[in-house]
Amino acid sequence: MRLLIKDASVVTLDPARPLLAPGYVSVQDGRIEAVSDQPPVGPWDEVIEGKGQILMPGLVNAHTHVAMTLLRGYADDMELMPWLQTKIWPIEARIGDEDVYWGSLLGIAEMLLGGVTTFCDMYYAFHRTAAAVEESGMRAVLSGVLLGFLNSAQADLEAACRFAREWHGAAGGRISAMLGPHAAYTCPDPLLRQVISAARELGIGLHIHVSETEQEVEASEQSTGLPPVLHLERLGAFELHPVLAAHCVHVSPQEIEVLARHQVGIAHNPGSNMKLASGLAPVCELLARGARVGIGTDGAASNNNLDVLEEVRLAALLAKVREADPTALPAHQALYLGTRGGALALGLEDVGLIAPGFRADLVLLEARQPHLVPPHNLVSHLVYAARAGDVRTVLVDGRVVVRDRELLTLDLPRVMAEATRRGQEIVAGRRPRRR
Amino acid sequence: MRLLIKDASVVTLDPARPLLAPGYVSVQDGRIEAVSDQPPVGPWDEVIEGKGQILMPGLVNAHTHVAMTLLRGYADDMELMPWLQTKIWPIEARIGDEDVYWGSLLGIAEMLLGGVTTFCDMYYAFHRTAAAVEESGMRAVLSGVLLGFLNSAQADLEAACRFAREWHGAAGGRISAMLGPHAAYTCPDPLLRQVISAARELGIGLHIHVSETEQEVEASEQSTGLPPVLHLERLGAFELHPVLAAHCVHVSPQEIEVLARHQVGIAHNPGSNMKLASGLAPVCELLARGARVGIGTDGAASNNNLDVLEEVRLAALLAKVREADPTALPAHQALYLGTRGGALALGLEDVGLIAPGFRADLVLLEARQPHLVPPHNLVSHLVYAARAGDVRTVLVDGRVVVRDRELLTLDLPRVMAEATRRGQEIVAGRRPRRR
Repeated sequence: MRLLIKDASVVTLDPARPLLAPGYVSVQDGRIEAVSDQPPVGPWDEVIEGKGQILMPGLVNAHTHVAMTLLRGYADDMELMPWLQTKIWPIEARIGDEDVYWGSLLGIAEMLLGGVTTFCDMYYAFHRTAAAVEESGMRAVLSGVLLGFLNSAQADLEAACRFAREWHGAAGGRISAMLGPHAAYTCPDPLLRQVISAARELGIGLHIHVSETEQEVEASEQSTGLPPVLHLERLGAFELHPVLAAHCVHVSPQEIEVLARHQVGIAHNPGSNMKLASGLAPVCELLARGARVGIGTDGAASNNNLDVLEEVRLAALLAKVREADPTALPAHQALYLGTRGGALALGLEDVGLIAPGFRADLVLLEARQPHLVPPHNLVSHLVYAARAGDVRTVLVDGRVVVRDRELLTLDLPRVMAEATRRGQEIVAGRRPRRR
Repeated sequence: MRLLIKDASVVTLDPARPLLAPGYVSVQDGRIEAVSDQPPVGPWDEVIEGKGQILMPGLVNAHTHVAMTLLRGYADDMELMPWLQTKIWPIEARIGDEDVYWGSLLGIAEMLLGGVTTFCDMYYAFHRTAAAVEESGMRAVLSGVLLGFLNSAQADLEAACRFAREWHGAAGGRISAMLGPHAAYTCPDPLLRQVISAARELGIGLHIHVSETEQEVEASEQSTGLPPVLHLERLGAFELHPVLAAHCVHVSPQEIEVLARHQVGIAHNPGSNMKLASGLAPVCELLARGARVGIGTDGAASNNNLDVLEEVRLAALLAKVREADPTALPAHQALYLGTRGGALALGLEDVGLIAPGFRADLVLLEARQPHLVPPHNLVSHLVYAARAGDVRTVLVDGRVVVRDRELLTLDLPRVMAEATRRGQEIVAGRRPRRR
């Protein structure tokens, strides 16, 4: 299978040749073959017209809980702990495996239609999310959530290990697995040590929430004598690779140095951090110290969409607020975090750039729209003016999964109908308690 | 002309009956005739199918410089004063009247397609913006910009008064005029007194930038002994109605009290304030004191789009950051600011609600999309999940101006082509200096 995208304005994210306008990108067997400002030589199995469109790498959602789309809009504008304790956790305890499957399909549909080609997930019933990923043609890094306070914690860890053995590298390499201890404050040290040791044996990474709120840091210091990052370092968590630490809002300079030295992947979630008033992550300091930063949406219950292009914009804007400096996190850097930065944070070394040898995860956006005119600076437009609805065509691993705004791999009306029905049943309490 | 929108989920913004699902809205001669959960009796000249769609009042952009769309993406991620002095002002001095016309059409096209039915503008060559508004079918409050340091200041004021006499109430009432002294720091007191007196004579309002940056407040205190709001009050500016004060980022409790007491309209511009790192406006305090707050995009050079739905989301998120409180500015309140709040801030008493007797400025959004499913809470979805591209159909004054995503009143390809050509010529310096 050899495919050509021709005549697009190509934003590569590759510092060697950041923009080709017009540019030509050829794809063979799922990987980018060549990137050129001249038409390459065929023959082609397929040619995609890119005229009037911007071609960019697929966006990477570095942290989400995809099936929480079922709870989108169910509870907003609340304090974090009442929100979790009275709204989210009681409802989540009633979400079944097939609910997770349909919620995952809904979130995947939203992401693919919005140019997101990879996501990193932590949730229950991960094998059903894996099935949804396999069907949809998307790329994903999946981890089950492990909570120390559940009676099922040991069984959950065993199930997560079985899942990793079965699914790591599955779907032609599109799926990878991590273990997902929810956070240091929800997993006691013996469980964390077990998880770290299991991940080492399996040769996989970890996905964990770290320092999302001030209270979390204070509690860690009281119970362990250390803030979460230093506590996790002492447990040996950061000797694994990749480790994806979600949030890292409240981290000291010493912790930033530790995160950077171990090349821990950091998922910055600006929309969720703003909506829950968690604080402003020190993204510029993390980057200045060489940390691996990507961008995530978090779950749809605290965002409320899975729109990474919007998160890229929020990251650029919020960094300026935090630093009181309009030059903080300029457009090209923010876009890098939403693509290549996220891929590196997830340990996906061959994802996130338009350059030969990279996975052909590609997005075409319609540029002939009033809000993207005049075309003075396409990177600026992608970050400060574009929106997910501008996405026309999406490829994952060289396969066209969205063409002219139509999702080819899923039955979208059925996905929306099932997710609506199940979401409404869940919030109405018409589900047995499972956890 | 009698028109019916049937079977939509109607988010009215009217506290008396906030949601009708399904709902029916009938329109006669440009005004809303009835709002009901039952099908009303015809006959109808036109019936618009609303099934699967959300019907809401048109969004109000309470502060912009519409023709600056020509400079979209031309200069970003810079400090405010170097950005203005080295990039924006030298270029703006070369923008001609026909450039303003085409830039206005571009911005109007973007706004109408994104569900914005009213905007409040301050710029040069306002008569050409007025022509663009008249052609497009949009509603606008227009003011020329008056700058004390220009040699043409007196002539500019005279031209602004002539414009007001000619255009205030024009286009079937869709256009109103204000006088637009740029700011207290750019207009010396004698000019401001002249402007206030002229506005009083004309029976129109003022549109002015107020306390956007800390430096502006400090400079005002040094030169006048008062912060900008108290200085303007002393000059008598707030005895006019309506007064639209853009930004009000750095205002003291005493100034907030003054703004509320005089019912000054305040345009909150969260995206621009974030991008330029101007600070966080005290929106919740303003509202708590009863001030009239709307939401604006500011110009496309500092945003970089004219997407009020996005600004509504940013307002809700940024308030939570400022107050460190996830309950601050909940969804319904943010949406109110983007519709009815903006209309009241502009003195448009019969705009911004779906209720009998109000102007029929109406927007239908496609709800059958993954990012708006399940429909647990439509107001939450509009604020936290929807985007401008979801807009399908738009009416202004009861006239359909966008139908199924097609802009009916303008030649969109021509507008984009002209704006591109002119924008590129301007930034390339291929224009004579005019100011």
